[in-house]
Amino acid sequence: MISLNETHDIGLTSWVSSANEPNNDFPIQNLPFAVFRRKGSGEAFRGGVAIGDQVIDLKALNATGLFSGLVAEALQACSSDSLNRFMSMGAEAWSALRLQLSRALREGSEEEASLASCLVPQAEVEYSLPCHIGDYTDFYTSVYHATSVGSLFRPDNPLLPNYKWVPIGYHGRSSSIQVSGHEFRRPQGQTKAPDAAEPSFGPCRRLDYELEVGIYIGAGNDLGEPIGLDKADQHVFGLCLFNDWSARDIQAWEYQPLGPFLSKSFASTVSPWIVTMEALAPYQTEWTRDAADPQPLPYLDSETNRASGGMDMALEVYLETDAMRSANLPAHKLCETNFRHSYWSIGQMVAHHTVNGCNLQPGDFFGSGTQSGPSQEEAGSLLELSRGGKEPISLPNGEVRTFLEDGDSVIMKGFCQRPGAARIGFGEATAKVLPAK
Amino acid sequence: MISLNETHDIGLTSWVSSANEPNNDFPIQNLPFAVFRRKGSGEAFRGGVAIGDQVIDLKALNATGLFSGLVAEALQACSSDSLNRFMSMGAEAWSALRLQLSRALREGSEEEASLASCLVPQAEVEYSLPCHIGDYTDFYTSVYHATSVGSLFRPDNPLLPNYKWVPIGYHGRSSSIQVSGHEFRRPQGQTKAPDAAEPSFGPCRRLDYELEVGIYIGAGNDLGEPIGLDKADQHVFGLCLFNDWSARDIQAWEYQPLGPFLSKSFASTVSPWIVTMEALAPYQTEWTRDAADPQPLPYLDSETNRASGGMDMALEVYLETDAMRSANLPAHKLCETNFRHSYWSIGQMVAHHTVNGCNLQPGDFFGSGTQSGPSQEEAGSLLELSRGGKEPISLPNGEVRTFLEDGDSVIMKGFCQRPGAARIGFGEATAKVLPAK
Repeated sequence: MISLNETHDIGLTSWVSSANEPNNDFPIQNLPFAVFRRKGSGEAFRGGVAIGDQVIDLKALNATGLFSGLVAEALQACSSDSLNRFMSMGAEAWSALRLQLSRALREGSEEEASLASCLVPQAEVEYSLPCHIGDYTDFYTSVYHATSVGSLFRPDNPLLPNYKWVPIGYHGRSSSIQVSGHEFRRPQGQTKAPDAAEPSFGPCRRLDYELEVGIYIGAGNDLGEPIGLDKADQHVFGLCLFNDWSARDIQAWEYQPLGPFLSKSFASTVSPWIVTMEALAPYQTEWTRDAADPQPLPYLDSETNRASGGMDMALEVYLETDAMRSANLPAHKLCETNFRHSYWSIGQMVAHHTVNGCNLQPGDFFGSGTQSGPSQEEAGSLLELSRGGKEPISLPNGEVRTFLEDGDSVIMKGFCQRPGAARIGFGEATAKVLPAK
Repeated sequence: MISLNETHDIGLTSWVSSANEPNNDFPIQNLPFAVFRRKGSGEAFRGGVAIGDQVIDLKALNATGLFSGLVAEALQACSSDSLNRFMSMGAEAWSALRLQLSRALREGSEEEASLASCLVPQAEVEYSLPCHIGDYTDFYTSVYHATSVGSLFRPDNPLLPNYKWVPIGYHGRSSSIQVSGHEFRRPQGQTKAPDAAEPSFGPCRRLDYELEVGIYIGAGNDLGEPIGLDKADQHVFGLCLFNDWSARDIQAWEYQPLGPFLSKSFASTVSPWIVTMEALAPYQTEWTRDAADPQPLPYLDSETNRASGGMDMALEVYLETDAMRSANLPAHKLCETNFRHSYWSIGQMVAHHTVNGCNLQPGDFFGSGTQSGPSQEEAGSLLELSRGGKEPISLPNGEVRTFLEDGDSVIMKGFCQRPGAARIGFGEATAKVLPAK
């Protein structure tokens, strides 16, 4: 469980006035990390922290020599084009830098002038992946998603017997993870209609998004040394939004017996900003199960996990079609749900992943699996919203969708808010589908 | 198809006399790459090429300034602690360096004195992984393995309908791949006996090896730009031996619906040496299918692939138990088979992997999947040799095995030989099982 401290105080305001506006994603209580440069500048990418509509250039801040000790070491680590080294420094370093930035950004801070010289407007920057992602693992933590997708792939057997015992996950493809704002071509591949004698080859016809939470590992573990459930906090750096694009028709034909492969590896999208676990401390919530659900095995159960393993994080998906763009219509909200519905907690994912001795490395990435809530409107994929493509979704401008069409952009947003804590946001993860080659 | 040239001439001999001994793995026609340093020296790791019982230190060779142009650039790229940059240079650079080394190592070469100063005995070195492996993909290319394992996991449905259409593969875990010579702890995890009401937690009781060929990608491709079947040669750097250790009891409980996860990610072992595709040119062989097998879809079929997609590479597995070690008995050969039995070719793996636009990067790694031949004795795993643990294997010293026990070492070897070509070997991939923690 991550403790609250002065950086979470809802009363704090910043001399960066945009940070004090209501419903802004990046108040002084958030302070998420990204890697950025001035758009089109050809500058080196370097670490940054969001405050209001600005980015604090951490390389520039490091160059001021304003801070010393662990904070200076952390700033040095954030000055390169990936955050892996900073992530590897562990929770003490992350927390020290957060505290120092929080104090320096507060109204009345003596460091205002020094920090002000390191600000770059977010409107003028472009992002890269925040770190080198060595291995990417995709989990499957929404029991609502698992049940409704299972019922489409295996009508007789929707939720498999292992689901409520094993935090199901599988290895994903790292190389095709890209940062928000990109475009990608509709994948081609083998598909087989249920009534066809043979498969055929062509562009995917059931292209879908998956609304996920991305989880970045900070400090790693050695091979053969599992991370206990209650130690996971020391290893998880922070969260982002994640779209694990999926080609449902390719998936249906390829996925047995070894799992999804080309149906996933053509593109995945992360939001630029990593919101740290410390920033999310006010939104830790109970991890609960139904009375009828099995008691987790001991390595997946602890008092702390039961008290604070859940995460109260609102998630939204918007669709913007070519027609909406041409008509200057706003993107249409397809779904809203919450990460607190996840059957397995982040700590359980970490403990399970390493219980066999598997080593995690700084910058490794987990997808939470598609987050769908208990009701149909809270489903995190078109596959679920359109009930396997059988019930087209009507859009406000008269268009309909079962799956994604060329020119569609999918925009994911997320935020945390509750009484007594500052609202913090995740920015967005967006990407656009181009026609197949 | 990779062409034969003067480097393949069976008549070539080297002034490194150990390279000329029969049945030595590293004659002058081989010239495989690794990353090494003197054992226990604390020196920096750097690239090396095997010749007989020696390693040519490529960093030292680079420092002599003996060569110029592309060869000098290649040597520079091989002087660091990973071969990724050399691999990214592409087939022209790989081939130029091979030709130059072949000439310089031949009997009578004028460069003998210069090269001799760069030799280090293999007996005095230790190896690291030869490159940073970004993504690792495991294929499933032996139809004999797929059928016999399928019959254990799914008696009614051993070979799934997609098998002869789709080169089945899945994403694997990169972080736990280690170089030959390591030890690892028996993994722990969840298992469930068929007749048990609930799963239990403990050390794996069905620990197995998988005899695979490892495939290193050299030059990559951009996201969205598939590699055509007949271009795959330009992207594959070379092959090694690969043991994809597997916890069969963990696998059986966890693998549905998303595939194997913790049953694989605790350890994998590669042999130190990468034998280049150019060295393997004499062993390219026909890629054939039975008349009853389906015609591959066009992106998986070409005349060149049919003529030369197969690889005639002998593979062997040996077991050395604690008792054998104590009694100074030799390791016992459990199986021998050949990579030419693979249902899918290396080119088909590359073409399939990228057909959806997925990007491969220099140093990415494919496992071929367990290579089992048509007969029971040619099975590449204990799961198959012991028919799911039902038929214990008797060892010459009176021990029996169904699965691996603590203290067991598994040694994989491989070589290519045929009339008219020089025999070339792969060295070995070996690792030892330690008790669970």
